[in-house]
Amino acid sequence: MGFTNMVYPGANHTRFHHALGAMFLMQKAVHVLQSKKVSISEEEEEALYVAILLHDIGHGPFSHAMENLIVPGISHEDISLFFMHKLNKEFDGKLSLAIQIFKNEYPRKFLHQLVSGQLDMDRLDYLKRDSFYTGVSEGTVNSQRLIAMLYVKDDNLVVEEKGIYSVENFIVARRLMYWQVYLHKTGVAAEQLLIKIFERAKKLLDDGIALQSSAPLRYFMSRSGEGVGFTDKDLEVFSKLDDTDIFAAMKQWETHNDFVLKNLCSKLLDRKLLKVEIQPAPFSDQIIEVMRSEFCEKHKVSKEEAANFIFSGKLVNQAYSMKKDPIGLLRKNGEVIDVAKLSDQLNLEALSNTVVKYYMCYPKIMR
Amino acid sequence: MGFTNMVYPGANHTRFHHALGAMFLMQKAVHVLQSKKVSISEEEEEALYVAILLHDIGHGPFSHAMENLIVPGISHEDISLFFMHKLNKEFDGKLSLAIQIFKNEYPRKFLHQLVSGQLDMDRLDYLKRDSFYTGVSEGTVNSQRLIAMLYVKDDNLVVEEKGIYSVENFIVARRLMYWQVYLHKTGVAAEQLLIKIFERAKKLLDDGIALQSSAPLRYFMSRSGEGVGFTDKDLEVFSKLDDTDIFAAMKQWETHNDFVLKNLCSKLLDRKLLKVEIQPAPFSDQIIEVMRSEFCEKHKVSKEEAANFIFSGKLVNQAYSMKKDPIGLLRKNGEVIDVAKLSDQLNLEALSNTVVKYYMCYPKIMR
Amino acid sequence: MGFTNMVYPGANHTRFHHALGAMFLMQKAVHVLQSKKVSISEEEEEALYVAILLHDIGHGPFSHAMENLIVPGISHEDISLFFMHKLNKEFDGKLSLAIQIFKNEYPRKFLHQLVSGQLDMDRLDYLKRDSFYTGVSEGTVNSQRLIAMLYVKDDNLVVEEKGIYSVENFIVARRLMYWQVYLHKTGVAAEQLLIKIFERAKKLLDDGIALQSSAPLRYFMSRSGEGVGFTDKDLEVFSKLDDTDIFAAMKQWETHNDFVLKNLCSKLLDRKLLKVEIQPAPFSDQIIEVMRSEFCEKHKVSKEEAANFIFSGKLVNQAYSMKKDPIGLLRKNGEVIDVAKLSDQLNLEALSNTVVKYYMCYPKIMR
Amino acid sequence: MGFTNMVYPGANHTRFHHALGAMFLMQKAVHVLQSKKVSISEEEEEALYVAILLHDIGHGPFSHAMENLIVPGISHEDISLFFMHKLNKEFDGKLSLAIQIFKNEYPRKFLHQLVSGQLDMDRLDYLKRDSFYTGVSEGTVNSQRLIAMLYVKDDNLVVEEKGIYSVENFIVARRLMYWQVYLHKTGVAAEQLLIKIFERAKKLLDDGIALQSSAPLRYFMSRSGEGVGFTDKDLEVFSKLDDTDIFAAMKQWETHNDFVLKNLCSKLLDRKLLKVEIQPAPFSDQIIEVMRSEFCEKHKVSKEEAANFIFSGKLVNQAYSMKKDPIGLLRKNGEVIDVAKLSDQLNLEALSNTVVKYYMCYPKIMR
Repeated sequence: MGFTNMVYPGANHTRFHHALGAMFLMQKAVHVLQSKKVSISEEEEEALYVAILLHDIGHGPFSHAMENLIVPGISHEDISLFFMHKLNKEFDGKLSLAIQIFKNEYPRKFLHQLVSGQLDMDRLDYLKRDSFYTGVSEGTVNSQRLIAMLYVKDDNLVVEEKGIYSVENFIVARRLMYWQVYLHKTGVAAEQLLIKIFERAKKLLDDGIALQSSAPLRYFMSRSGEGVGFTDKDLEVFSKLDDTDIFAAMKQWETHNDFVLKNLCSKLLDRKLLKVEIQPAPFSDQIIEVMRSEFCEKHKVSKEEAANFIFSGKLVNQAYSMKKDPIGLLRKNGEVIDVAKLSDQLNLEALSNTVVKYYMCYPKIMR
Repeated sequence: MGFTNMVYPGANHTRFHHALGAMFLMQKAVHVLQSKKVSISEEEEEALYVAILLHDIGHGPFSHAMENLIVPGISHEDISLFFMHKLNKEFDGKLSLAIQIFKNEYPRKFLHQLVSGQLDMDRLDYLKRDSFYTGVSEGTVNSQRLIAMLYVKDDNLVVEEKGIYSVENFIVARRLMYWQVYLHKTGVAAEQLLIKIFERAKKLLDDGIALQSSAPLRYFMSRSGEGVGFTDKDLEVFSKLDDTDIFAAMKQWETHNDFVLKNLCSKLLDRKLLKVEIQPAPFSDQIIEVMRSEFCEKHKVSKEEAANFIFSGKLVNQAYSMKKDPIGLLRKNGEVIDVAKLSDQLNLEALSNTVVKYYMCYPKIMR
Repeated sequence: MGFTNMVYPGANHTRFHHALGAMFLMQKAVHVLQSKKVSISEEEEEALYVAILLHDIGHGPFSHAMENLIVPGISHEDISLFFMHKLNKEFDGKLSLAIQIFKNEYPRKFLHQLVSGQLDMDRLDYLKRDSFYTGVSEGTVNSQRLIAMLYVKDDNLVVEEKGIYSVENFIVARRLMYWQVYLHKTGVAAEQLLIKIFERAKKLLDDGIALQSSAPLRYFMSRSGEGVGFTDKDLEVFSKLDDTDIFAAMKQWETHNDFVLKNLCSKLLDRKLLKVEIQPAPFSDQIIEVMRSEFCEKHKVSKEEAANFIFSGKLVNQAYSMKKDPIGLLRKNGEVIDVAKLSDQLNLEALSNTVVKYYMCYPKIMR
Repeated sequence: MGFTNMVYPGANHTRFHHALGAMFLMQKAVHVLQSKKVSISEEEEEALYVAILLHDIGHGPFSHAMENLIVPGISHEDISLFFMHKLNKEFDGKLSLAIQIFKNEYPRKFLHQLVSGQLDMDRLDYLKRDSFYTGVSEGTVNSQRLIAMLYVKDDNLVVEEKGIYSVENFIVARRLMYWQVYLHKTGVAAEQLLIKIFERAKKLLDDGIALQSSAPLRYFMSRSGEGVGFTDKDLEVFSKLDDTDIFAAMKQWETHNDFVLKNLCSKLLDRKLLKVEIQPAPFSDQIIEVMRSEFCEKHKVSKEEAANFIFSGKLVNQAYSMKKDPIGLLRKNGEVIDVAKLSDQLNLEALSNTVVKYYMCYPKIMR
């Protein structure tokens, strides 16, 4: 959840909880489907549990926020896959089927959809879990009922028509969780600070300036960028990294003599975050320019350095994609229809549009 | 909740719980508004608690289902008001302000809106409570947060703009609760049986046929229809009525020798409900006609009698009325805008349409 | 729960909920034991579910309170058994094994203990359920953990030693629930009123005075007393009885012209209960005598009649019986020891004593 | 909670949550007492909130486990007090009353007892919170009810007599939480590893061997021992310390070339904990001696070094102290009696004994 606990202090649950929870839901889903005479072999069942248990293992510290900073160009899904292949060697090929399903290379597509799809066990767990721990109770989804309504038609995961209101609610709740939790402006402000900190640290290192950090973090910060692949050594060092390395580094850098690095770190560690404004249209370059000039003058820094404290960006949210992997409802006559067509009430077409909002961050005392 | 516990067996909560819960939320709302410097005097505060505590006291047994059968032409709100006036006499006028607020005759409109409006404490309690006790968890509303976002502008209750997602969710959740719970077809089937039973019983009584029942129930069943007002005596007898009178009557009528009455009662008491089908368009008269004929032949009854077992009707649901009492969002600039205009995502105009579905009931063995 | 909802208004859960819940726990217990290699055949499993589902079916209206009034001399367990035999006939002997287990006539004793014993699924459900619905949260038991610790040794149900704290807590929680909920003085006062009402009604009937009531209730009230067996006809009429019959009768009797009956009914229905005092020693006959005299004089009634309003009795509670069916803990060396011996902390011997408290009831205005 | 999340993975709640929760309960307690006409002035009320909010601020990383390692001879209460004095200066004496109450130097003793006593808001929060997050549901206490039963008699906090069962349950639940959670052997094993790690690290530093760590941690590890007081500088550096410093140090030390340090760190970080046995009597020195010899031979280490991997100790638990600060129950006649005397059922004298259990730790592969 990145820095969500700065907004919702209860949100201290971990990726470990999520992995267990998603596997628990997968067990429920398998039982539901089997009770409806969808055949799932013992091997497929085990593969599903392995795949969902490991689906997020490739996430590094602060997951999405740092995904492109630590290992640029390689997604967490890729790294999950590297881990699975490593484990597959150790376990003499016992994960082969799980890997096939995870990569969607297994003919029975619905098995992949249970791991990664519109209504996969990943989402059904994290939406419910995040709603619970943040206290944003209206973001809850009825995972139990959605799972009870699952069925398989032509190798695709579908939902029985009578589950339509639960599906609509799932889509609306998911969108609410995005705006209210995952894209909450305070969380975004903290995340942006973290990004700026690591970009600055990299720059200083590239400029030959000494910086303390743990060995694994140093390893990745001095590793050259994209397109260099990911070796077994990389994987091993990556597995040593966790939030501790990041926090320990920032705590040390807080006393560094670089103005930018020092200040960004103390803002994040002491929770003196930048102020964030959000609006539907981009912020004018001019406003930003003016504020940066003011900042330069006050703190005797360059424009480039000021850009670490005053900047804008965008937040993107798409509640439901009609085209990519729509949610199919199964009617009693056997027909499967996209929920977007059956729902007469929700504007699911509108919900499937990508919504963009723009934010601007700047030190609280300005403006 | 009428017969909802036939579908969701956990739903055994009572109107007494609801009255206490709504009053509890009212206390929260008063504290929130006062902390935002909305002045509410001690008298107004007490009047709000009285009004919300008594707002539903006029509900008779099985509330909505029997509303028009027991005292035709007089709504439960009217009867609540009769009770309030009665109590007002007993308490030497101490309820006068509560009555004014309840009737929306008090100048400060937002006080009435807290008791009866789009976001009143009544709804905020029953939606959350019914979601909890039915287990339809996705129908929950975040009452606490909605209340925390309340404000008063120009004597109208409004919601701070940042509460927009909670308001959207409230509207969607409410609609879900309607289709999934309040208008659930099994509940509807049971309710229709109850209505047919009492219509039949009244007819038999009018025809001079003896029927056992409790004294208060007999009183209202033999009372002449609409337009006769509601006397103090009526109110006193009404206060003696509860679900017991209805169940006791049906248990006695189950052994009556009238084919229709006996059968309707045993269907309801033994949970052998009629089958219900639901569709977006009305059912053809012809189908109904054919089934009734078949029924007449089989059971040697008249067409009119068959109509107690084979009939159609409609379910009406309007999640949000844009025109009547819209939900206003308060922007930071002080402007108030209807949520339907601010929400770019939900099709609130569509949600504000009245949706009609048609049902047909018939004995399970037919068709 | 009798009249517990007069004290804890949330306690509106039903015996139906409890039956489902106890069966749910039984499923858990069967899976736990099977996963520990305790063999339970498919037939035994089904029999356990049938037995636990039906274990309380013989409870009439207001269960324990009226147990001896409606069918004197025949316990609810006996009636449960009559129902099981009846169903066994209808289902061609399919309940035979369930009946054997229920009666403890099956050689594998632990199966009976799962249905009826110190740690049976009945208790594990009702203690947790009643704690939840009353809000007496400290009375909760960790049913899930207790079940997870179950094992079978020499055909007896035992608990793994490491579950000792959960067992201790179960015993203490159970005792707390008794004093705080099941034997709560307000509930007791209501229950005593109910008993007096039906004793009075019987007396009036025996004296040839007319009394209205539903047919099934009249059947049992005019049935001769103990030692007459229980016929199929009795069972059929008994199955028609529920709380409705009792409430409907009291609502009618509230307007009867017998001073005692009328007053007792209106006290109970209007929640104007008798005052209850509780103390460790019996109340002196003299005090009672004085109050009754006063009452006689004031209301012009006989001493016998006054005894319906002023009376004493005792409450009995035994949290844990060391002798009858002790809870065995299984040590790692295979030995089974009574929890009362292993627990160095709780005074389980003291807890296993029968505790008696004495109460006295009288009209609120007196004393 | 130290390493409790190694046993109960849900237990990731923080001291911050606890501080907020305890303050929330304090608000409830103040309102309850005020509603019972116990006068609490606005200044006292604020002081209570300050005192409870800051009562634990002196806890360093891993609280109890490291309390004597980081700042030997100075308790966390002392450090809390140093922080309060520091804040008191910053806030111009506004915390003076809070400090008086915290130190029990204010004449109205019950105010201190609300912060620190048998039934203080600290315990009422952490027992309930820890029970919730661990899932050890039978360890819950009914904080709400206990608070509702509070009263003040002769400046002492007492409980109304009718709360006796809740008090008994509180004592039993607390004891259960100790054995089941706080003194759980896996948590103890992890804690002992942490202690051994820091003792070893200190020894290496004292021997002049280089060890990486964060600046604040190095500061305290090289600070001389007891009896040196605690300066403002100490306080400032202490405030920089958190779990990150400890974890970061151990992650670095895991690759150190000292056999003992390296191995202890990797055991803790990779969750390859020592095995723990628990028994009521001390373990024989001989057994320990034999195992250590074996270990020395195998790993070519000294006896002193082996003692880091094979050692014994004791766990101490006292559920209720009758002498020190007993819980007084207020009878209706105004008398106050120790719950230990009123409770006829629980062996509170036994519960008030200090229970000692002995443990022995050793590497899993041995024995």
